[in-house]
Amino acid sequence: MTVIALDAMGGDFAPRSTVEGAIRAADDGTEVLLVGDERTLTAELATHERVPAGVRVVHAPDAIAMDEQPSLDLRRRSSSILVGLELVKRGEAGALVSMGNTGALMALALVSLGKLPGVERPALAAMIPARSGGPTLVVDAGANAESRSTHLVQWAAMGAEYMRVVGGVAEPRVGLLSIGEEPSKGSPLVVETNRVLAASSLNFVGNVEGRDIVDGDIDVLVTDGFTGNVALKLVEGMVTTLLGGVRDAAKDSWRARLGGLLLMPALRTLRQKFDYRQYGGVPLIGVDGIVLVGHGRSDAFAVANAVHTAAEAAEHGALEALRSAIAPDAAGAADTANSSDEGPSLRTAP
Amino acid sequence: MTVIALDAMGGDFAPRSTVEGAIRAADDGTEVLLVGDERTLTAELATHERVPAGVRVVHAPDAIAMDEQPSLDLRRRSSSILVGLELVKRGEAGALVSMGNTGALMALALVSLGKLPGVERPALAAMIPARSGGPTLVVDAGANAESRSTHLVQWAAMGAEYMRVVGGVAEPRVGLLSIGEEPSKGSPLVVETNRVLAASSLNFVGNVEGRDIVDGDIDVLVTDGFTGNVALKLVEGMVTTLLGGVRDAAKDSWRARLGGLLLMPALRTLRQKFDYRQYGGVPLIGVDGIVLVGHGRSDAFAVANAVHTAAEAAEHGALEALRSAIAPDAAGAADTANSSDEGPSLRTAP
Repeated sequence: MTVIALDAMGGDFAPRSTVEGAIRAADDGTEVLLVGDERTLTAELATHERVPAGVRVVHAPDAIAMDEQPSLDLRRRSSSILVGLELVKRGEAGALVSMGNTGALMALALVSLGKLPGVERPALAAMIPARSGGPTLVVDAGANAESRSTHLVQWAAMGAEYMRVVGGVAEPRVGLLSIGEEPSKGSPLVVETNRVLAASSLNFVGNVEGRDIVDGDIDVLVTDGFTGNVALKLVEGMVTTLLGGVRDAAKDSWRARLGGLLLMPALRTLRQKFDYRQYGGVPLIGVDGIVLVGHGRSDAFAVANAVHTAAEAAEHGALEALRSAIAPDAAGAADTANSSDEGPSLRTAP
Repeated sequence: MTVIALDAMGGDFAPRSTVEGAIRAADDGTEVLLVGDERTLTAELATHERVPAGVRVVHAPDAIAMDEQPSLDLRRRSSSILVGLELVKRGEAGALVSMGNTGALMALALVSLGKLPGVERPALAAMIPARSGGPTLVVDAGANAESRSTHLVQWAAMGAEYMRVVGGVAEPRVGLLSIGEEPSKGSPLVVETNRVLAASSLNFVGNVEGRDIVDGDIDVLVTDGFTGNVALKLVEGMVTTLLGGVRDAAKDSWRARLGGLLLMPALRTLRQKFDYRQYGGVPLIGVDGIVLVGHGRSDAFAVANAVHTAAEAAEHGALEALRSAIAPDAAGAADTANSSDEGPSLRTAP
């Protein structure tokens, strides 16, 4: 049974949301280690009639506030995030899920778990729903405010591997976000990245534009962390605005009200498809352990889904896949030698 | 009566869309100079029962194809874009509207009209509809693949002035697109721009995130041309995806079908609000003349709206407003002296 560590103190609605989310996830068959202040968590658990055996508490006396600066957190060895990361590091948990302070989580994951061999910069890999077909993985969705071409190329390789082993896509189509489809269009960063990706063994389909992000024609969208974060949040904002607009329209008149009532069940699928809570969290790829970052305002449903996503990643061997996407394995000593001058490179044979 | 030059040969559906758009605009009281091949345009006009007196043809024997590289176009002095720009330059038209090759249009506008005094880089200023209140002007929406902080600061000043005189917003609220609300969040470009805007006389509200773009809480959103273009096109893609999803849902069952029929009139307002054709075109601000860039796939409705938007900009004195936003006027000689060391600066008194 997969064991997932959950930062029980992280998020706007913790520990109520995290404890209830853990109970739901355990009911679905995942063992959850609730990491946080034991007294608080025991009290919260006591408000539930029934706690499944799969939920256990791991004491961490301290918690990092949502708005704390990451730099200060590193000194506190007893925060729920750090205790959770150490559980992953020691192999006692297959992954850590946190709805807490994202900056602190990323900084602490780097310190505690370190990077996978050869990885220059870890990145957030967020699923964005698409009009047709499966979702698109957006890397980087905001871990890095500044990005270089070598980073983007590594994220493309890791993203494709993640979609292959976790998303079950045989040959993930990789697109590069730009402001024109031609290889020559875009910033120098994008033009250079296009050149390297076109020469790689990845299934690179070329540049894609903003309007193509939600088309479903690609499986992995590579972009710098700034643009990726803006895009991810804009998708969220547009869902709220447009589906909220449909809801408002259905209050316009008795006629619209009736129409809304009749249409509602059919709209549920659309609403669910674009509900950010369905994946519950965004993997931080490139660190040596599986870490999922959730939305600060996650409810129990989102928390349970994040635990589920983390368990799936762990069960599918996502970490080993990511490791092999960047660094040649022990058997590939020749590759290591080849790439050693210019630092770590992509594995060039699929 | 305001006279607007229209590149009659530009756009996927030209000259049918441009000729019909010109007739509609002229019916609404704007005089339109249809610039393009006289024989083609006369034939197209002949397919209409009635051509208002406000539509005239200006011969330009050549046209620039949608996918041509801008660099080659400059040699052809007789293209419809260049002839249209010269009409603006000579004061025979108050603005040029083109649905043609955007890259060529921007390059030719720079060559033909030149930049407004002190402007470092022209930018595209696109209106994005918002959940509540008026639209938000996004600058730069894609004229520049690379941007510097001094560019963003000038775009903020020009965007605010444009919203003041054309949008009728007394004190436009200016937001800076970033990946966190704190001034310290974002790329070095954004952090530096935040610092300068915070010290300026603009009504700067600070950083805004992707999900805030369509909230309606700001009037001008400043961003680099890469991110702005991605955001603009993503909004378009999300509208297609989500409103298309609602339409599809209304085909699910007899119940949903009836619901859709009843709700449709109320949804029309929402659809119209997010219809990119309502503004018809995006002003290229910072060149010495009013130039509107339209969508390649504009239909006659979009063309007529673009002509209308251009006429409004001309009638409100947008060009003089933009000029004064960057360069001190003749009376402000002291300001000119002050800013001369560091190049042109913002006018610091409102």
